[in-house]
Amino acid sequence: MGFAEMWAELLPVGRDERTGGYRRYSWTEPDAACRAWFARTAATLDLATECDRNGNLWAWWGRSGEGSAVVTGSHLDSVPDGGAFDGPLGIVSAFAAVGRLRSEGFRPGRPIGVAAFIEEEGARFGVACLGSRLATGAIDPAAALSLRDGDGISLADAMTDAGRDAALIGRDDALLADVGAYVELHIEQGRALAGLGAAVGIADGIWPHGRWRLDFAGRADHAGTTRLSDRSDPMLPYAATVVAARQAAAECDGLATIGKVRADPGAANAICSAVHAWLDARAPDEASLDRLVGRVIEAAEGAASQHGTRMHVDTESFTAGVRFDAALRQRMAGALAATGISAPVLATGAGHDAGVLAAKIPAGMLFVRNPTGVSHSPAEHAEPADCEAGVAALAAVLADLAGQ
Amino acid sequence: MGFAEMWAELLPVGRDERTGGYRRYSWTEPDAACRAWFARTAATLDLATECDRNGNLWAWWGRSGEGSAVVTGSHLDSVPDGGAFDGPLGIVSAFAAVGRLRSEGFRPGRPIGVAAFIEEEGARFGVACLGSRLATGAIDPAAALSLRDGDGISLADAMTDAGRDAALIGRDDALLADVGAYVELHIEQGRALAGLGAAVGIADGIWPHGRWRLDFAGRADHAGTTRLSDRSDPMLPYAATVVAARQAAAECDGLATIGKVRADPGAANAICSAVHAWLDARAPDEASLDRLVGRVIEAAEGAASQHGTRMHVDTESFTAGVRFDAALRQRMAGALAATGISAPVLATGAGHDAGVLAAKIPAGMLFVRNPTGVSHSPAEHAEPADCEAGVAALAAVLADLAGQ
Repeated sequence: MGFAEMWAELLPVGRDERTGGYRRYSWTEPDAACRAWFARTAATLDLATECDRNGNLWAWWGRSGEGSAVVTGSHLDSVPDGGAFDGPLGIVSAFAAVGRLRSEGFRPGRPIGVAAFIEEEGARFGVACLGSRLATGAIDPAAALSLRDGDGISLADAMTDAGRDAALIGRDDALLADVGAYVELHIEQGRALAGLGAAVGIADGIWPHGRWRLDFAGRADHAGTTRLSDRSDPMLPYAATVVAARQAAAECDGLATIGKVRADPGAANAICSAVHAWLDARAPDEASLDRLVGRVIEAAEGAASQHGTRMHVDTESFTAGVRFDAALRQRMAGALAATGISAPVLATGAGHDAGVLAAKIPAGMLFVRNPTGVSHSPAEHAEPADCEAGVAALAAVLADLAGQ
Repeated sequence: MGFAEMWAELLPVGRDERTGGYRRYSWTEPDAACRAWFARTAATLDLATECDRNGNLWAWWGRSGEGSAVVTGSHLDSVPDGGAFDGPLGIVSAFAAVGRLRSEGFRPGRPIGVAAFIEEEGARFGVACLGSRLATGAIDPAAALSLRDGDGISLADAMTDAGRDAALIGRDDALLADVGAYVELHIEQGRALAGLGAAVGIADGIWPHGRWRLDFAGRADHAGTTRLSDRSDPMLPYAATVVAARQAAAECDGLATIGKVRADPGAANAICSAVHAWLDARAPDEASLDRLVGRVIEAAEGAASQHGTRMHVDTESFTAGVRFDAALRQRMAGALAATGISAPVLATGAGHDAGVLAAKIPAGMLFVRNPTGVSHSPAEHAEPADCEAGVAALAAVLADLAGQ
């Protein structure tokens, strides 16, 4: 079975017929169907599968414990109405690369593993990279178990319902000690490779990024009678902040987005009492990110004061930047160059399991060209030829790292 | 019973203990309690009460049919978590004015009526001034009966559950033919009287006003990876439109408010695919309102285009301006002047039953000073002395209009 067949088999799982987008949330029925696909596909490749204590799936060519394993993989879960490629491309490419190496008669000197980390998107329980965070000890297991989904169901209950022993979750040093390197292949979530005319790229690092909650408080009032000069309307400083965030991002060579906003009480004929907004900001380095966020907060405070309102900011999350292991990156580049693949080096603003694992083991990433750059959307796409180029690149890297 | 006692008896009905705001929605239990209060209070004043076909309450001093009645009143229902004064002040003041005239030995030459119109706020069924619109034929009875509240209950079912015959609702020419003039006393929903140092004012008219829905459409994308130049982010033109609306309102001497906004899909880490916003706009005359709304739409279209997004606008509602009957207004001013009350003339941006009734019968309004201008909020307030001044003013007007 090559890439195309594996891809076609996974494609319909968890796809919403109306939107064409995916709703593959961890520990749900579509997730179980994805996991069953993982086990079936591994079996056709003669790989031994297991599920670790945190719910991450592993398929082994050779057994861990035999040495310092080379692992590749990604995730199967999606954001709400996400695309087909973000996550699954890395898993399908991993299996396809293993299949290619097997058919070429390659004999690994070290075990090769294919991993599928659970809840990478955080779409169900709100914490991104939950599976890799648990395995590396980056999140407290008790805190994780009490995370709840939109229906109030805890991770503990969701895992129990799925037949897992939730009490076992947490840091898994023994498992990670067997992994010598982790290489994740992922669709690019931007257009850098398209601009450079390359099918495949190598990740340099992940930008530091975070989420800030901005609460603007004013005073509810009648929209039809309250003079402009008497108003304390929090929608006005909110709007000024949206404009300022875009400008600050441009000035700091970073990214700033406000994609979530809530107005209270939200009546069409009343001035709001409050506006709550979430700022997502990212930049190449922490100094730039500090400068970017500082400018947004300064603008928000100034506008709030100008309009007789108040503003409060909370850091909801912050993830430090990741520089992937330089030695591994150079070795990946060498393996690709030896196969005639020219792969530019890029940084990304998106978080990935590879970034979490990088704290414990040498990790790296390959990106596959995304012609439009669109991601987290049903319109997300990569050309079949570029997917095959990704498989070839991943196979070359695995052969080099796991070679005799 | 004077104003203070009547007021104190109505005050606790339908008040939410947590917010201190009122939730007096038509055809609910708090509404029934308000209606029982209306009947009890009318009885202490020897007034004959009746409920018309549309559910509006009437209390008569002298009987309609005896001549061209002088009616005063307002409404008992509230917006969600509204204040104590918007509506009830007009009813309590009406009863208190009747009580004052009775105790002074006044003998009306024409019947005097006190009316309480149902669903003025439109808080339950979404159409403001529903009771007066039904009576004047401004809304089709079949359309009204199929209006539904937030729980999906129709007006027809709500009226039936309250023991009313819903099939009877609609235009009531016979009732209105008996009304020679309607005068509504209302708390001011702004600070004009406070600025002028007057306890009471006379309404000139109601500004034309409307609601426009603005839909900004862009493209959902990953907040962490999509370059600024690749974005089609509808939040940016939305923000520019909020800023432009405020500026247009100031330039056109009108009011513009965006108090309701929805971002799709509304994820903190995704660029929105769409932003939906509702513009409430009002101005002293239709030409000014047209100019104001035209500037907002022009700015919205320009910003949408600048950011690679699309904008569509729909007029959700439009209410023409009302000029209250000039002869009635002059007569009210004369009656107040004769009693030594100086009452400035003001326009308002808020709709009222008096504005709906004005299409059929001479109508006018008195406003009572609101020191903060706050309305549609638990903080809405009028000083007791100003409420008493309102009662005195209303009594003087009724005595003049209904005098021998």
